[in-house]
Amino acid sequence: MYHGVNLDKLKEECGVVGIYTDSNEDTARLLYYGLYALQHRGQESAGIAVNNGLKSNYHKAMGLVPEVFNEDILKKLDGHIGVGHVRYSTAGESYVENAQPLVVRYRGGSISLAHNGNLTNASVIRERLEDGGVVFQTSIDSEVIVNLIARYSNEGIITAIERTVDLIKGAYALVIMTEEQLIGVRDPLGLRPLCIGKIGEKEYVLASESCALDIMGATLVRDVEPGEIVIIDKNGIRSNPYKNNEERASCIFEYIYFARPDSVIDGISVYEARKNAGRILSKEYPVEADMVVAVPDSSVPAAIGYSEASGIPFDEGLIKNRYVGRTFIQPTQSMRELAVRLKLNPLRENVEGKRIVLIDDSIVRGTTIRRLVERLKSAGAKEVHVRISSPPVAFGCYFGIDTPDRNQLIGAIKTAEQIRKIIEADSLGYISTEGLVASTTLPKEHFCLACFSGDYPMDVPKVGEKKIFERLPGGE
Amino acid sequence: MYHGVNLDKLKEECGVVGIYTDSNEDTARLLYYGLYALQHRGQESAGIAVNNGLKSNYHKAMGLVPEVFNEDILKKLDGHIGVGHVRYSTAGESYVENAQPLVVRYRGGSISLAHNGNLTNASVIRERLEDGGVVFQTSIDSEVIVNLIARYSNEGIITAIERTVDLIKGAYALVIMTEEQLIGVRDPLGLRPLCIGKIGEKEYVLASESCALDIMGATLVRDVEPGEIVIIDKNGIRSNPYKNNEERASCIFEYIYFARPDSVIDGISVYEARKNAGRILSKEYPVEADMVVAVPDSSVPAAIGYSEASGIPFDEGLIKNRYVGRTFIQPTQSMRELAVRLKLNPLRENVEGKRIVLIDDSIVRGTTIRRLVERLKSAGAKEVHVRISSPPVAFGCYFGIDTPDRNQLIGAIKTAEQIRKIIEADSLGYISTEGLVASTTLPKEHFCLACFSGDYPMDVPKVGEKKIFERLPGGE
Amino acid sequence: MYHGVNLDKLKEECGVVGIYTDSNEDTARLLYYGLYALQHRGQESAGIAVNNGLKSNYHKAMGLVPEVFNEDILKKLDGHIGVGHVRYSTAGESYVENAQPLVVRYRGGSISLAHNGNLTNASVIRERLEDGGVVFQTSIDSEVIVNLIARYSNEGIITAIERTVDLIKGAYALVIMTEEQLIGVRDPLGLRPLCIGKIGEKEYVLASESCALDIMGATLVRDVEPGEIVIIDKNGIRSNPYKNNEERASCIFEYIYFARPDSVIDGISVYEARKNAGRILSKEYPVEADMVVAVPDSSVPAAIGYSEASGIPFDEGLIKNRYVGRTFIQPTQSMRELAVRLKLNPLRENVEGKRIVLIDDSIVRGTTIRRLVERLKSAGAKEVHVRISSPPVAFGCYFGIDTPDRNQLIGAIKTAEQIRKIIEADSLGYISTEGLVASTTLPKEHFCLACFSGDYPMDVPKVGEKKIFERLPGGE
Amino acid sequence: MYHGVNLDKLKEECGVVGIYTDSNEDTARLLYYGLYALQHRGQESAGIAVNNGLKSNYHKAMGLVPEVFNEDILKKLDGHIGVGHVRYSTAGESYVENAQPLVVRYRGGSISLAHNGNLTNASVIRERLEDGGVVFQTSIDSEVIVNLIARYSNEGIITAIERTVDLIKGAYALVIMTEEQLIGVRDPLGLRPLCIGKIGEKEYVLASESCALDIMGATLVRDVEPGEIVIIDKNGIRSNPYKNNEERASCIFEYIYFARPDSVIDGISVYEARKNAGRILSKEYPVEADMVVAVPDSSVPAAIGYSEASGIPFDEGLIKNRYVGRTFIQPTQSMRELAVRLKLNPLRENVEGKRIVLIDDSIVRGTTIRRLVERLKSAGAKEVHVRISSPPVAFGCYFGIDTPDRNQLIGAIKTAEQIRKIIEADSLGYISTEGLVASTTLPKEHFCLACFSGDYPMDVPKVGEKKIFERLPGGE
Repeated sequence: MYHGVNLDKLKEECGVVGIYTDSNEDTARLLYYGLYALQHRGQESAGIAVNNGLKSNYHKAMGLVPEVFNEDILKKLDGHIGVGHVRYSTAGESYVENAQPLVVRYRGGSISLAHNGNLTNASVIRERLEDGGVVFQTSIDSEVIVNLIARYSNEGIITAIERTVDLIKGAYALVIMTEEQLIGVRDPLGLRPLCIGKIGEKEYVLASESCALDIMGATLVRDVEPGEIVIIDKNGIRSNPYKNNEERASCIFEYIYFARPDSVIDGISVYEARKNAGRILSKEYPVEADMVVAVPDSSVPAAIGYSEASGIPFDEGLIKNRYVGRTFIQPTQSMRELAVRLKLNPLRENVEGKRIVLIDDSIVRGTTIRRLVERLKSAGAKEVHVRISSPPVAFGCYFGIDTPDRNQLIGAIKTAEQIRKIIEADSLGYISTEGLVASTTLPKEHFCLACFSGDYPMDVPKVGEKKIFERLPGGE
Repeated sequence: MYHGVNLDKLKEECGVVGIYTDSNEDTARLLYYGLYALQHRGQESAGIAVNNGLKSNYHKAMGLVPEVFNEDILKKLDGHIGVGHVRYSTAGESYVENAQPLVVRYRGGSISLAHNGNLTNASVIRERLEDGGVVFQTSIDSEVIVNLIARYSNEGIITAIERTVDLIKGAYALVIMTEEQLIGVRDPLGLRPLCIGKIGEKEYVLASESCALDIMGATLVRDVEPGEIVIIDKNGIRSNPYKNNEERASCIFEYIYFARPDSVIDGISVYEARKNAGRILSKEYPVEADMVVAVPDSSVPAAIGYSEASGIPFDEGLIKNRYVGRTFIQPTQSMRELAVRLKLNPLRENVEGKRIVLIDDSIVRGTTIRRLVERLKSAGAKEVHVRISSPPVAFGCYFGIDTPDRNQLIGAIKTAEQIRKIIEADSLGYISTEGLVASTTLPKEHFCLACFSGDYPMDVPKVGEKKIFERLPGGE
Repeated sequence: MYHGVNLDKLKEECGVVGIYTDSNEDTARLLYYGLYALQHRGQESAGIAVNNGLKSNYHKAMGLVPEVFNEDILKKLDGHIGVGHVRYSTAGESYVENAQPLVVRYRGGSISLAHNGNLTNASVIRERLEDGGVVFQTSIDSEVIVNLIARYSNEGIITAIERTVDLIKGAYALVIMTEEQLIGVRDPLGLRPLCIGKIGEKEYVLASESCALDIMGATLVRDVEPGEIVIIDKNGIRSNPYKNNEERASCIFEYIYFARPDSVIDGISVYEARKNAGRILSKEYPVEADMVVAVPDSSVPAAIGYSEASGIPFDEGLIKNRYVGRTFIQPTQSMRELAVRLKLNPLRENVEGKRIVLIDDSIVRGTTIRRLVERLKSAGAKEVHVRISSPPVAFGCYFGIDTPDRNQLIGAIKTAEQIRKIIEADSLGYISTEGLVASTTLPKEHFCLACFSGDYPMDVPKVGEKKIFERLPGGE
Repeated sequence: MYHGVNLDKLKEECGVVGIYTDSNEDTARLLYYGLYALQHRGQESAGIAVNNGLKSNYHKAMGLVPEVFNEDILKKLDGHIGVGHVRYSTAGESYVENAQPLVVRYRGGSISLAHNGNLTNASVIRERLEDGGVVFQTSIDSEVIVNLIARYSNEGIITAIERTVDLIKGAYALVIMTEEQLIGVRDPLGLRPLCIGKIGEKEYVLASESCALDIMGATLVRDVEPGEIVIIDKNGIRSNPYKNNEERASCIFEYIYFARPDSVIDGISVYEARKNAGRILSKEYPVEADMVVAVPDSSVPAAIGYSEASGIPFDEGLIKNRYVGRTFIQPTQSMRELAVRLKLNPLRENVEGKRIVLIDDSIVRGTTIRRLVERLKSAGAKEVHVRISSPPVAFGCYFGIDTPDRNQLIGAIKTAEQIRKIIEADSLGYISTEGLVASTTLPKEHFCLACFSGDYPMDVPKVGEKKIFERLPGGE
């Protein structure tokens, strides 16, 4: 089977959502809708846990949100507080045991936790906990986090979370449910997004992206601040700005590709940032051409921006098969080329004889863009000028994004001109880092740009370590 | 469960594909790819039948193409000739027994038949055949057709098909497989599309749309002519222009909505026709506005055309959830509005304060467009001017398209101004029939326009009859 | 996967059931119970068709009765008349398309037909029908039968059935449902069983075996007579003793192995016949021994009979795993012996040092009995004397029983002494044909004994023909 | 759905198996066969964990052994050490999260643990561990056990197990796998069974019952002693008779009903014990009758024993439907009686006019035996004398057996005579406790007889407590 959802893209590893409502009626259903809106952040497993003040209940399984849940299951998920999670993961560790939310019983009751991000010191803490006699049943960081919280819980749950946050390093947006509270936590650098929404006067939602709030009927209040702990209970919402941090390092790839265009992160419209990137790209790499074509769907805003700024008309040049799901059957050797066409077919009548600016949001391995240039040319395009709305991806991510090994990152091992030759484009232009930052209208200091620069905002594990701390029991 | 693929659209009822190859290796796999490319024509069931000269073999089941077939099943489908089918059907008759291709044994061997379209005299013929002692096991027209062919088969298969074609009335694109031949038939008025493709020198493909040829690695040779019978066997391809018909009545909705934009039907690019329709619409219904927004995905070409001709910038205003599949869980009463948002969410940052031209390709019941106008306005749009790239749909189809009862067709029971008020648009313009025809660059006589005019190209059953001839045995 | 239900046994090919009730409430549910009781007659597919006077409805699928049906499906099967079917079939033709009942529409309405047995002239009739232009969609005889009935149906359904019965040859117990009637037909020789039951005053049941009547709350009225047509409708039950036949040839294997011991066929208790066979076997092949052991479960009655007549105590010696279902995973080469133990494990403590009489009801290939003797001996049995309550099976069946090729029938190619040596038994005794017949208390003329004698009650197809007339379209 | 496997019986809660082999080839497959042989001990979930010295791998899911495992899954379970588990559980806690073996990572590597039995102080220990900051993800005792082992593991795994055994109270047979060892532990009173088998010279098996050894090709070496820890590694097997206990309290219900008759527990053949019980019962409660009938299948040995001792012939009187699986569809009100017949149908021809001794192994609620007496009488039995091969069950079990609430135990709330009247038997005799003990040939001190006497071998939780310590997170 081919995995078909994404063509040579970096993958977000998770999406989280939480809700605190007045009644039990719609809780699970609203979480379901919220997870559906966040499905692009993780397609491997989905889970929901709810709490009616007396008892936690949860359901999680491998699959897409509509595959994991049905009416019967949602009906059994009775509660007025709830958290949900969608997960993508690297191959080989995709066990149902690793699905979230993680629901545990501890001395004070139950904790349900959903986590987006990646800790950089999980293995160190896990070893230390193991030395103290703790056992682990999964290979997810969340299990480390709940163990720390439980350990400190005799001082109260909020203090326990503060002490846990003191210990863990890395990227995390957490939604935590106890019998009485919904709690949101964002890491001190704000690496992963998390925002607050409101339904009516007293009901609150937490979500990785504001698009989930729209779908859940909530209004965006604001983002959780880096280092902030937000507590929602029957008394309303209060904030615990625990780590008053000056530094920030929010992931800029949320704006480039991960987030949905209808989300607003840290006050900035993802759509607008993408369109800006297209505008700036057209200034940095102008070209004479007949039409601007996007690699659908994620590059459309940047292509519209490029078109607007350059005056070259935007038009469709690649038709996407809307039914290509996660898998399709591998073609035989003699049919190899067909699998790409199945997904994206050039619009021959529209591209024939044209000079094309092809906009994509990123190049990871370079395999897909090479095939698309080839397909457009064999459909009659006279020239294909590739413009990429992010700088070359040259370094791995340790903060919750699945990146291939560095030697597979074409931006790490080849120059732009070498890449242009490999993909047989007539010209190739990557937006500059400055241009990309400018597209967001936020200062450079706001962002983690490590995947372009290698300049990580904190110490990261050495090569190979990532694998090591994933060596854990796993079911087939 | 809500059915989620289409929002208030007419539904194509089938797609067909056939192949004649030199070897058995890739036959089933190529059919699989072809059906995948035609998935938009039917999502209810899928089937493939192949023939290796000795034995027919088939597999069909309810579900999408990638759900119905897997490696093991494709491996067992061993043959050098093959036909495939995807099917959509009206509720209540969605039994696996009705899935196609229909494979039968007759005196001369086996016939496998896949049919797109709808016969208008199927019930009359069926009754006559029943009077002669014939039994029927399904409620599909194809069973009538194979019975006629079998009945006349002592005069040879081609003559049998000719005699069958003399008897049946209505719309049909057929691909038929015998032990030795692949045969394509298109009805005398050319109501439903069917085209011929070539792989290399000697291998041929038949398909409802040319986009399937692209995905199968075939080159478009030409369309099957109305009334033509095309025979492909080891001696190559030959034509039997049996019904030399002057009249034509091809379905114009293929250009408006059904066909994929990367298909070329009767020599005309579907994409180009849609863009033309947008251009013409902008002349017929100009308006002062800030941006042109398409209802994604099918209305994008018309929106680009409207933008180009009007000079109003094209931009995104509605974000589609790419993961909303066939079903999702119904919201409770209090959440009713959310289900629409789940599918299409307004891009608040982009539409706020703007005067919007909203392009859609058709209005059937009017429910979705009404909600979209409302959503855009509550997202801050100052004005919403709706432009529809087809005339009002006011009459049911008897030729293979699923249309609701006339009293549910808003175009049949309300004037344009009434509809404008109902959908709360600031203005509403439907393209004229002349404008629509002009968008294709073909003469008016080429088309069936009955869904707009009620002027059917042949006698059609009276009200209620449709239901009657579907009263047949059906499994649960 | 190993098929695990039966160890080296002949297989019955079908069970049928029909019901005519006053109301729609319990019809499908009673059929479900009846099929459950007949599950031993076929484990491959199951189906139920019902009729409420207006509309037929059916459901059939591969699998056991409780796998094929659930509450939702049964609820949709609304009707006061109904027929049901369980099917076993030979490998390679196990398509869902061949599941029964077969439901067709013909000039007079709909016919649903369930058939137990096998026609010997189906291929001849099928060819003649094909010559007349008829098409076939399955490879089951039932399709031939419904075509004949439909063809003659202008003279009324009963006359049509009579004329059909005139043409078809072979073994058949049929239950047929029209919009108004439930009809039972048994072939002129009475090869396959069919009996009539009554619920209360006016409701009737037809079933292959009387055990189904017990489970359905019906009382056995009598067997359908050979050649009889029984018609049940709102006027009650009436008989059409169409073929007043002197000859009979009922299948004696129903008494030996196929039927459930709690059934009564043609007035004779199956259990009693089996116990008698054991008694007679002990007279024909007495032996000095310590205990009589049955191969569970079917040989227990014969073993009890042998014990009673011989005075040797009956005891358990082989423990059956009650959870071994249709499949289990094949052991590797080094584990080959274990698969037999999985199913039947010797009771070491009970057999050690003992002289055992091991009773089985039949030997087909001889593989299982050989392993059981070996297992008992390695568990410490001093002697193992095998006694078989049927004569050697030496000829294939053409009347609805699945027999292996003759060269695999150990009774056809080896003498009893050779077999004894192969299975390493201390002695081996097969009951005589006379003894077997005597066990039923019916005259020899009552029975078909062809599988022992080769003396078929009618002409049968030549070698190889069976395969030929099964070469039909089939889905994977 | 009705649960159909057992008719009003106590339920064993688990079966365990472990293996230490030389190679990786057959490990998982042998465990699969072993679990298949132990399927009667638990039908809710099944699991296998293996270890190849480097990495643990496991698979567990809800369902029967052949449903949970297939070839692909077994192939991935690569290792030379392994443990397996089948589980039955009380309603409401049947989550996949509770399936075993439990596989965890601790400081020294990984532990996989499978547990049969029930701790009486699990909740106390759990609370103490929670006070120390430990979190729990399941509601199974095994999680408490692995936490204790991990906690003490710095002193070595064996010492850790010893210290754990010092703390836990109740019934447990454990098989534990580390990277290097297979370890078996039986509780100090020997409440639950566990035995040792040998394959060839150097390969060892541990299993709940010896019948699993037979199926796995192993020879019974001996039982694990109460309080013994058995360690198997590359150096062979060694014993750690840690708790040198004088007392014993083995569960006598293993002999009465739970264990398979082909198992030998603590040196005593289960089959022989059951037959003895029948013999003794015939002395304690003789009666004049015509035949002895067993409730199949478990009561057959006792019935044979009763028959032998009394001289009344053993015969079949109730026919069991061999295809009734775990579920079948509930009959409507008017059909209520039929569900019992579906499972067990009286053999009318054999029982009519007879005086019957009906042997059952136990009465829990009394519902099934009442229906069977009624069915036999309405099938014509002149008298039905019920004989039960265990004393009245009057007290709940806290050691791994699922017993209903005391007020549902008919033996707790009614006298024998009252019960006789309720079940409408002509006479009723329960074996005496002394008789039952004598049937095993072991001394009374060997057994826990608390379910008859209420005299528990250790302190047990008060009423209601059982529920409390099951209040734990659980998924739907």
